[in-house]
Amino acid sequence: MQNVERITSNQNSHVKRWSKLQTKKGRKESGTYLLEGWHLVSEALKAGIDLVEIMVVDPNDWNQLKSLPTTTMRYEITEEVAKHISSTKTPQGVFATVLVNNESNKIPNNLHGQWLLLDQLQDPGNVGTIVRTADAAGLTGVVLGDGSVDLYNPKVVRSMQGSQFHINLLSGNLLEWLTEFEYQDIPTYGTELNPQAVAYDQVPTGESFGLIMGNEGNGTSSEILAATTKNLYIPMNGKAESLNVAVAAGILMFQLTKK
Amino acid sequence: MQNVERITSNQNSHVKRWSKLQTKKGRKESGTYLLEGWHLVSEALKAGIDLVEIMVVDPNDWNQLKSLPTTTMRYEITEEVAKHISSTKTPQGVFATVLVNNESNKIPNNLHGQWLLLDQLQDPGNVGTIVRTADAAGLTGVVLGDGSVDLYNPKVVRSMQGSQFHINLLSGNLLEWLTEFEYQDIPTYGTELNPQAVAYDQVPTGESFGLIMGNEGNGTSSEILAATTKNLYIPMNGKAESLNVAVAAGILMFQLTKK
Repeated sequence: MQNVERITSNQNSHVKRWSKLQTKKGRKESGTYLLEGWHLVSEALKAGIDLVEIMVVDPNDWNQLKSLPTTTMRYEITEEVAKHISSTKTPQGVFATVLVNNESNKIPNNLHGQWLLLDQLQDPGNVGTIVRTADAAGLTGVVLGDGSVDLYNPKVVRSMQGSQFHINLLSGNLLEWLTEFEYQDIPTYGTELNPQAVAYDQVPTGESFGLIMGNEGNGTSSEILAATTKNLYIPMNGKAESLNVAVAAGILMFQLTKK
Repeated sequence: MQNVERITSNQNSHVKRWSKLQTKKGRKESGTYLLEGWHLVSEALKAGIDLVEIMVVDPNDWNQLKSLPTTTMRYEITEEVAKHISSTKTPQGVFATVLVNNESNKIPNNLHGQWLLLDQLQDPGNVGTIVRTADAAGLTGVVLGDGSVDLYNPKVVRSMQGSQFHINLLSGNLLEWLTEFEYQDIPTYGTELNPQAVAYDQVPTGESFGLIMGNEGNGTSSEILAATTKNLYIPMNGKAESLNVAVAAGILMFQLTKK
């Protein structure tokens, strides 16, 4: 059995550091982010992700964690500490920290694959749900454009439900990505609320594409729409003015990946 | 100009009643629910809905409300009162009350049309987004099965974005609805996470159907799945275990309503 450190005080320096992982600054300082609950921790372990630290409330839980590598630091924390570091009101009894991917802002040399690019998305629940949907649809990766919500925001992490361990998550300047897609002869599709655009089910499904979804309120920026191969719209028979961006992204991804 | 009552105290009896509209009990007692913000109020007016009461913070706003019928009671409230009755931290300066539809638990005689039925959905954001998506897809109506979240929960109302004024919203026992669909020879489709079920794009799109979406955690109940014409699944190429229910509902509705 590995050494386990017991922590009972919110004043403990580890607790202070974990609590700061709720903020972008805290995540940047430590280079890690927080996983909360059994589902996320076991998704990370299944995917072979190295946990930096693991914290449990109930000592019996170590029985379920026998296969942890010896490099993972182990802590037993009180319910009070769990509440202090959690982003939810009723935390589950397990937490882990994992490394933030620092290589995630480089455009891969070969963009063959199916990519979703997010232009200034702000709502963490939307971004997390979109990453989960992209994972379900079997996409290669999701790119968060500059000005989007931070990928390791606790609400994003909760909504992703572990999909960050299955697909590539990158960030960067979307105009640079579009230039690279064009150079590699891969079609890119913007999306707009414009019946003059191409109906989403009238483009060929393909092995490689870049699909861009825009900001919840303002849509995709005009610079980006001008730099795509085509821009798509989803015909709406009803009276609602628009779709929720996560719903629209789901409809488009499942259409474009049809075989 | 109609008579306007000025209200400055949270102890005022109207304010107490409005504040109670956050709860199901308060909505039942008054037979009304609350609209918050200009978007919802103007959607209601565009749809010809009679507002029971309207409350504004800024007296200049009456200029935008000149076409209100004389039957609508008018109130000027302080920002403090606005905060007290609002479900959000930074309320917009306009509210209205409208009547809850008491006829909404009767199954229509003629079910010709495209219906979505929700089996025990719990998350108000999901339900509101689903109603908005059903409206966008041009569906006839949405039926909330027994045990689902209340349709006039403030978070549902916020996420619907006014779609309740465009399509039929009903509630009831879904097994009774399924019996009626069968009697009227209209196909019904359950949904399940089961690759043995029928792929969602392998059923004919049709003018009339009943599509059932299930609870976020447990899916659709087995009694309901046993009573449908067919059960559908959405093939997933990736590793995510499931889709968010609002995303799945969007993919299915836009597929089944294709022309």
